[in-house]
Amino acid sequence: MNSAEVLARQVMHRIDELSAISETPGILTRRYLTAEHRRANELVGHWMSGAGMDTWQDAAGNIIGRYDSAQGNAPALIIGSHLDTVVNAGKFDGMLGVLCGVACVQALFQTGRRLTYPIEVIGFADEEGVRFGTTYLGSRAVTGQLDPSLFEQTDAAGISFRQALIDFGLEADQIGQAARHADDVLAFLELHIEQGPVLEALGRPAGAVTAINGQTRLSVTITGEAGHAGTVPMGLRRDALAVAAEGVLAVERECDGNDDVVGTVGILRVTPGAINVIPGEVTFTVDIRGKDDVDRRNVVAEVSRAVREAAEQRNCFVQISVLHEAVSAPCAERMIKIIERAIATVGFEPCRMPSGAGHDAAAMAELCNVGMIFLRSERGISHNPAERTSEEDVTAGINIMMKVLDEMEGY
Amino acid sequence: MNSAEVLARQVMHRIDELSAISETPGILTRRYLTAEHRRANELVGHWMSGAGMDTWQDAAGNIIGRYDSAQGNAPALIIGSHLDTVVNAGKFDGMLGVLCGVACVQALFQTGRRLTYPIEVIGFADEEGVRFGTTYLGSRAVTGQLDPSLFEQTDAAGISFRQALIDFGLEADQIGQAARHADDVLAFLELHIEQGPVLEALGRPAGAVTAINGQTRLSVTITGEAGHAGTVPMGLRRDALAVAAEGVLAVERECDGNDDVVGTVGILRVTPGAINVIPGEVTFTVDIRGKDDVDRRNVVAEVSRAVREAAEQRNCFVQISVLHEAVSAPCAERMIKIIERAIATVGFEPCRMPSGAGHDAAAMAELCNVGMIFLRSERGISHNPAERTSEEDVTAGINIMMKVLDEMEGY
Repeated sequence: MNSAEVLARQVMHRIDELSAISETPGILTRRYLTAEHRRANELVGHWMSGAGMDTWQDAAGNIIGRYDSAQGNAPALIIGSHLDTVVNAGKFDGMLGVLCGVACVQALFQTGRRLTYPIEVIGFADEEGVRFGTTYLGSRAVTGQLDPSLFEQTDAAGISFRQALIDFGLEADQIGQAARHADDVLAFLELHIEQGPVLEALGRPAGAVTAINGQTRLSVTITGEAGHAGTVPMGLRRDALAVAAEGVLAVERECDGNDDVVGTVGILRVTPGAINVIPGEVTFTVDIRGKDDVDRRNVVAEVSRAVREAAEQRNCFVQISVLHEAVSAPCAERMIKIIERAIATVGFEPCRMPSGAGHDAAAMAELCNVGMIFLRSERGISHNPAERTSEEDVTAGINIMMKVLDEMEGY
Repeated sequence: MNSAEVLARQVMHRIDELSAISETPGILTRRYLTAEHRRANELVGHWMSGAGMDTWQDAAGNIIGRYDSAQGNAPALIIGSHLDTVVNAGKFDGMLGVLCGVACVQALFQTGRRLTYPIEVIGFADEEGVRFGTTYLGSRAVTGQLDPSLFEQTDAAGISFRQALIDFGLEADQIGQAARHADDVLAFLELHIEQGPVLEALGRPAGAVTAINGQTRLSVTITGEAGHAGTVPMGLRRDALAVAAEGVLAVERECDGNDDVVGTVGILRVTPGAINVIPGEVTFTVDIRGKDDVDRRNVVAEVSRAVREAAEQRNCFVQISVLHEAVSAPCAERMIKIIERAIATVGFEPCRMPSGAGHDAAAMAELCNVGMIFLRSERGISHNPAERTSEEDVTAGINIMMKVLDEMEGY
């Protein structure tokens, strides 16, 4: 076994060990500012120390390890991902990126090598947002972009973010201390599982992320008129479901024509919902994501237009509300190129792909250049105990990350 | 006021009186073989006697009044509709047809007139099928087409049809006595509210029914694959809802091209039904009705073909089950013509229309020639307390029925 293979095996063992720290026995659930969050930080901090890093927990509960450069006070490359999970999670989502960062520093430390820049590995405390219904709390504290009104958000038990910080031994008013200055940061690098089927379909272990996609979520309500399925002629109907069906197909059609935009209708509810009654009202959701904000907004506009036209043809009313809107966070072209070269150097064909899911890199892009390495997910499964990335692909990931670290010396 | 106007006012009063006989105070619900069924039969029987008829309750619980002809034993014209209701019903559905029949006989009786044929007015005991989940029990007993296996059907309380007959003072084994011989029946005439918006849209009080439409009900299940709304590219999706949407629009499209067929998707359920998850399974119903069985089956075949094609394009599986299939029951062309002429004689422009809803006439068509008069429903509303037909239109209905009775002397 070469060094990367040994490190990959260690990462796989550590992932198992880390996934045993759960709020619920038998499944993996680890939310922000819980006792299990503290235990995970302690364990990861212990591994960071073993890899030659100085470690501390910041004012937001992120665990950080720093591996200094050969000389002076150069800006640091931050490598990171998150340690919190969704409910009944897979064990690779987030954790793999943190542990690969630690593994790469360990490789440097074992050979006594220091780079021209310091490396910091961060295990972010909250990315999934499960506890307080808001995402990226860990990385947004690091960028200094945490909105103070969030401290009043409460969890399912009615405990506020502010109180949860106190219970964890932290202070809302001190959280600004977690913020980093742009001058002190060279760039941000995140390795993450793809959580989708693209790399598997391409037969490649890794890809370079071009952007964390922007997202629009709509709720659409169509109001027509319920009526007897047998007695109302087609020409006199105001069928809300027919309008909604046009909307579903408009989402598919508008996104099919655009490689970088995906669209989904995930919820659709029919009222009254009886076999012999024409649907009088239908509510459905639309989720549109894309690398390019203009493209995404064009698709949203086209879908809205198609729904309104379909409604007009059927004498129905349309109400469209925006539930959520997030702009795209592009990765830096220089970082993308470095990752592509690293993939090629390791011996694989490089490829580029957007990230449809959110990541800490999207928050960190507010502070510095970001780059992301995706590793292949088996069958694209994620947020599920069946989530898996092979040890072989983790080896590739560590090799690619090591090459990126080399190249970053010239950044 | 002329005679028909007086009779129409009486019918409107009687409808109010009859609708007060309900299992549930405040709303109208009157199911087969209940105490309220018995009270309704007694009240209607009382009105029949007052109109000069001999009355009896048959072996199925139908209430019948007979007004003999001037001479001999000629076959009888049966005028009828039903006295049972859906849950929270309107008060015109069924009852109006029975009471208009009684009103016409009353008009003959008051002038001492007898026709060349006897008239029987029947208040059928079960058309809606609410109690035992099967329709036309009253009229099917009269045609002798009641399947003995139905006696084992149970209601929501677990009481069998057989037991309910006993509790009502009847015997399942004697129900054959309700059956009539075709030789004894001249024809069947039913007056009923339209339960749809066609006559109102045409601005006419009445129409001649061409057929009680045949019906096919399907349950369609599409199985694709659930996936992350952000990470699965459009080309790799197996979106069950997109297939279902094509099905919804195929139903609309195939029926739009055919005046005599209507189609409805009334139920559509999405699994797992989360805003950020591609639908992995969708189940929906299809209800297709038409005057012509071949046309209807062609539409069913075209819809099924379109769904299968849409599923193939998206790599999904399709399962289609037939929940219900009933052939069309055509009205006799001679009866349609007589009704059209009667409408014209009374002073309105005649029109023909199929019935999308089921009626006792559909069962009676097994025994004899049938004809149906539709009266205008306000806003097409039915199976709803807001169901209404105006006193003016009821006057028209009584006048039309009287003309039909005149013409039937030559039948």
